[in-house]
Amino acid sequence: MPGRRLEGVFAPIATLFDDDGELDLAAYAANIEWYCQSPLDGIVIMGSNGEFASLSDDEKLRLIEAGVSATNGRKLVLAGTGSESTRGTIRMTRAAAELGVDYALVVTPHYYRPRYDRAAFVKHYQSVAEASPIPVLVYIMTAYTGVDLPSATVAELSRHPNIIGVKDSAGNAVKFAEMVAMSEPEFSVLAGSANFLYAALCLGAAGGILALADIAPRECVEVRELFLAGEHERARAAQFNLLAPNAAVTTQFGIGGLKAALGMVGLATSDPRLPMLPATDAERAEIQRILERAGILARV
Amino acid sequence: MPGRRLEGVFAPIATLFDDDGELDLAAYAANIEWYCQSPLDGIVIMGSNGEFASLSDDEKLRLIEAGVSATNGRKLVLAGTGSESTRGTIRMTRAAAELGVDYALVVTPHYYRPRYDRAAFVKHYQSVAEASPIPVLVYIMTAYTGVDLPSATVAELSRHPNIIGVKDSAGNAVKFAEMVAMSEPEFSVLAGSANFLYAALCLGAAGGILALADIAPRECVEVRELFLAGEHERARAAQFNLLAPNAAVTTQFGIGGLKAALGMVGLATSDPRLPMLPATDAERAEIQRILERAGILARV
Amino acid sequence: MPGRRLEGVFAPIATLFDDDGELDLAAYAANIEWYCQSPLDGIVIMGSNGEFASLSDDEKLRLIEAGVSATNGRKLVLAGTGSESTRGTIRMTRAAAELGVDYALVVTPHYYRPRYDRAAFVKHYQSVAEASPIPVLVYIMTAYTGVDLPSATVAELSRHPNIIGVKDSAGNAVKFAEMVAMSEPEFSVLAGSANFLYAALCLGAAGGILALADIAPRECVEVRELFLAGEHERARAAQFNLLAPNAAVTTQFGIGGLKAALGMVGLATSDPRLPMLPATDAERAEIQRILERAGILARV
Amino acid sequence: MPGRRLEGVFAPIATLFDDDGELDLAAYAANIEWYCQSPLDGIVIMGSNGEFASLSDDEKLRLIEAGVSATNGRKLVLAGTGSESTRGTIRMTRAAAELGVDYALVVTPHYYRPRYDRAAFVKHYQSVAEASPIPVLVYIMTAYTGVDLPSATVAELSRHPNIIGVKDSAGNAVKFAEMVAMSEPEFSVLAGSANFLYAALCLGAAGGILALADIAPRECVEVRELFLAGEHERARAAQFNLLAPNAAVTTQFGIGGLKAALGMVGLATSDPRLPMLPATDAERAEIQRILERAGILARV
Repeated sequence: MPGRRLEGVFAPIATLFDDDGELDLAAYAANIEWYCQSPLDGIVIMGSNGEFASLSDDEKLRLIEAGVSATNGRKLVLAGTGSESTRGTIRMTRAAAELGVDYALVVTPHYYRPRYDRAAFVKHYQSVAEASPIPVLVYIMTAYTGVDLPSATVAELSRHPNIIGVKDSAGNAVKFAEMVAMSEPEFSVLAGSANFLYAALCLGAAGGILALADIAPRECVEVRELFLAGEHERARAAQFNLLAPNAAVTTQFGIGGLKAALGMVGLATSDPRLPMLPATDAERAEIQRILERAGILARV
Repeated sequence: MPGRRLEGVFAPIATLFDDDGELDLAAYAANIEWYCQSPLDGIVIMGSNGEFASLSDDEKLRLIEAGVSATNGRKLVLAGTGSESTRGTIRMTRAAAELGVDYALVVTPHYYRPRYDRAAFVKHYQSVAEASPIPVLVYIMTAYTGVDLPSATVAELSRHPNIIGVKDSAGNAVKFAEMVAMSEPEFSVLAGSANFLYAALCLGAAGGILALADIAPRECVEVRELFLAGEHERARAAQFNLLAPNAAVTTQFGIGGLKAALGMVGLATSDPRLPMLPATDAERAEIQRILERAGILARV
Repeated sequence: MPGRRLEGVFAPIATLFDDDGELDLAAYAANIEWYCQSPLDGIVIMGSNGEFASLSDDEKLRLIEAGVSATNGRKLVLAGTGSESTRGTIRMTRAAAELGVDYALVVTPHYYRPRYDRAAFVKHYQSVAEASPIPVLVYIMTAYTGVDLPSATVAELSRHPNIIGVKDSAGNAVKFAEMVAMSEPEFSVLAGSANFLYAALCLGAAGGILALADIAPRECVEVRELFLAGEHERARAAQFNLLAPNAAVTTQFGIGGLKAALGMVGLATSDPRLPMLPATDAERAEIQRILERAGILARV
Repeated sequence: MPGRRLEGVFAPIATLFDDDGELDLAAYAANIEWYCQSPLDGIVIMGSNGEFASLSDDEKLRLIEAGVSATNGRKLVLAGTGSESTRGTIRMTRAAAELGVDYALVVTPHYYRPRYDRAAFVKHYQSVAEASPIPVLVYIMTAYTGVDLPSATVAELSRHPNIIGVKDSAGNAVKFAEMVAMSEPEFSVLAGSANFLYAALCLGAAGGILALADIAPRECVEVRELFLAGEHERARAAQFNLLAPNAAVTTQFGIGGLKAALGMVGLATSDPRLPMLPATDAERAEIQRILERAGILARV
């Protein structure tokens, strides 16, 4: 059903490896089981925090298969299917659809970014959307890609019936206002990090895809529920409480920090793939302290 | 009365020149008279939009004198008193205080920015605050200065009783959340541009210093009033209506565009000082169209 | 024979596609035949200009096989084998070695660059060098990757006997001086673009890997020969003559421009893979004019 | 005599302050006496290393007067006369000429850089050149200003008979090649830092304005003399020997480091103006070690 609006809070779940560095699909499925019991609206397979860039084509397919199977229809499943070429992106998107994924999250091509103008990006996304059996979300992750699609380009893409939303991971309040104001009414603008979820919702965002939701799904969902209930003061307080934990598992300590935190809340985890390094002991102690102070470890 | 909280909406008013390129203080005073009749809470003399960087030391003093005199106590008066050296900043801040300015807006030193670390910035602001008879606001204008003080540094500065607020002109929702959450309770966090005023208010900002308020003070004030009344839907709609006009007089057409717009709303105006170029005819037509569409010219 | 010094001028050859977007290995081999007749010291398979980032793992292997076969030992063969993970890079490097490649050119991991510190990069390259049967060159391509390894890190890597050189595509004269001065004596510092080849040679570089050599191998080799002969005035003049043609096939018109130029000098060519767009007619006319003016089309 | 070519090695001398933070013109003159005994071709008053951005208009005039008087015609005198506005730059340039300065070094306007296009910069420099009684050099200092005039703009400015050269402080070998190749034949392209002096000379530069020449004038001049004598190997070795000392007094330890080094070679010195901090004891020890290792302290 192309064109349907996507709303809610989603976790871009971590990819786990065994001691030989191979995919650990059993542990992956165990974590998904936990997410299915949570108030989350869905999961994202192979987001940036799922280390998609470090996986082979074959591993990507196996991960999708395992993720869809473990979810078993209980939650929405999004999958990162973007690659540098339009051709490769279409191939992976179609494979994901065939395997049962609900939405494709397509990161901007970026390696040759000085060579891509607006026409190149528009043609890329429109070609992928045309070829995709499932709805497509544009994924803007400027910190990693160096690409920031302007609001006007996002708005242009929103005119395509099979491009149904955007995830933007930079917390630029002007950009969020513009994307909501300029895009099609049903277009879903999603926050890409929990530290600006409340602000994005105030500006009309439909929800968020939040690394912090990997370890604190209830706390993330609560921000949105308070907002929807018109409880602005409490929503803001809940947002403020998530600032330090969110930084700990994103900008401050990265994926190594996120994977350390998974263990702290009782989920399965592993080291990231090299060259990404795991959190050091000092970093782990700091993360523990931050999560405790925010009350996130209280329920474990 | 150091330490008092600053709240509201302020206009960083334009500096006007006569045909010989000299300050046109009569036209400047005429505009201030109009602002004094408006619902604004105050004006800012020599903000970035006041072309402070293109003025001589002598001109700065004359401008302050004229601005304070024209305001005559009817509105709060802030003045930009920052310069590259701590010594020069203290001198100008003291002079401004003596001439009757209420608050000093001190832009971050920036020319030698690769040489300034956190210690240098903290020492600078604390030294200025110690020496200043009037409360000091930190002014972060990254697009022009290349300097972005981190939230933790702003929070540290908020501990000084004579540093009472910050104006940040980048619409980073995470930064605003952090500055409010981490600073002293009474510390005033101000939006530096109208296109993220509503988001900043949601996150606890005390108001804004907005170039758009130079030509549309009522519309800017209205966003804040709707927010204070808990009318979130209407506040957001009012915010969205200001996105295009705000871009027109800031990022899109710059100070040349702002000065063209001043004329369109019936205020006195002039060309900017070279090398800043005035708006072209095509730009003026586009600005006119944008302001009309947003209803800003309806009342003129 | 790990540790041997690499010297000379190398062409990072273009990857060609047929009308269905599949690899056109026959055309690829035909171009290699021409390069083997040229004064070049070798070719690079799957450099950035070879669109490596847009190829599947399977295509990469087929391209290497075809390239090694066509070269048939007449020139040195380098291949780009870097990917985001250490694991994937080792796998591709070993496969390339098995297929007969002489040197591995390993681009810096970059997607998660805010998460990689010096330790991560050092561990990555040392692990790859340990596992690689062939000598490894570090490939720094900041314009595409956003990663710039400092001179001190390059020097540290040069201590490993199987890391025998670096290609740096930014023409920073200080960086080249530092890399040569600080690295092991036999370490090969290579210019990554023809527009600073002469300056790099003056500073002790061993040669270059130059997109311009794809269409003008003799002219590129001549700069080095004049330098080696101590003909500095003539070398500089030859360098100046290559500035405009080099810009035309790199920064100005990109890979689309390079592929258009291939056709102009009589080589096989194709469009780039989408989302990279081919040169427009206006761009082609401009490229033609630039190559003619520099005398590069005279011999065709 | 407008239009005359400028060649050689110049020192952008430090500005000194007494214990009250006032200009110490006696110490300043004493240092100039030493530079007049050196093989330098001239001095620069109020370059970036002369802390021009931290001086008042009145101090600038007094500094020029003292500098010209102390030099007394024995060396060429350049002075930094740029400010944000065209009007202010003309005023200061005329005053400098009247006080006996030989060349004006005019830094690019930069505070409002997102508002300045090529037309604005061209008009600025042409207006200043028209109004200036002395020849004008364009000063590009991207690390401090964020402005990098493209080669084509520099070449366009070189057509004006009273714009006789450019100082560029970024060691981009392509940019230097382009500036020399595209500008008028007599136009002087000057290196803005000693760590790429030799490369710049190879590419046709006329010399350099080098902070390192403040403490090691003979060593800097020697690089150029070896180059002029065609002694490329020795010139490169001399260049390599200056890499670490140059970094110590520029990028690594800044003006605080430069001022510490002045004392180490027996010259008068002082702390920088706040917020620029002086070198710490640990930094001073490191600078001492670097200068000793390079043999720069041997002669003291």
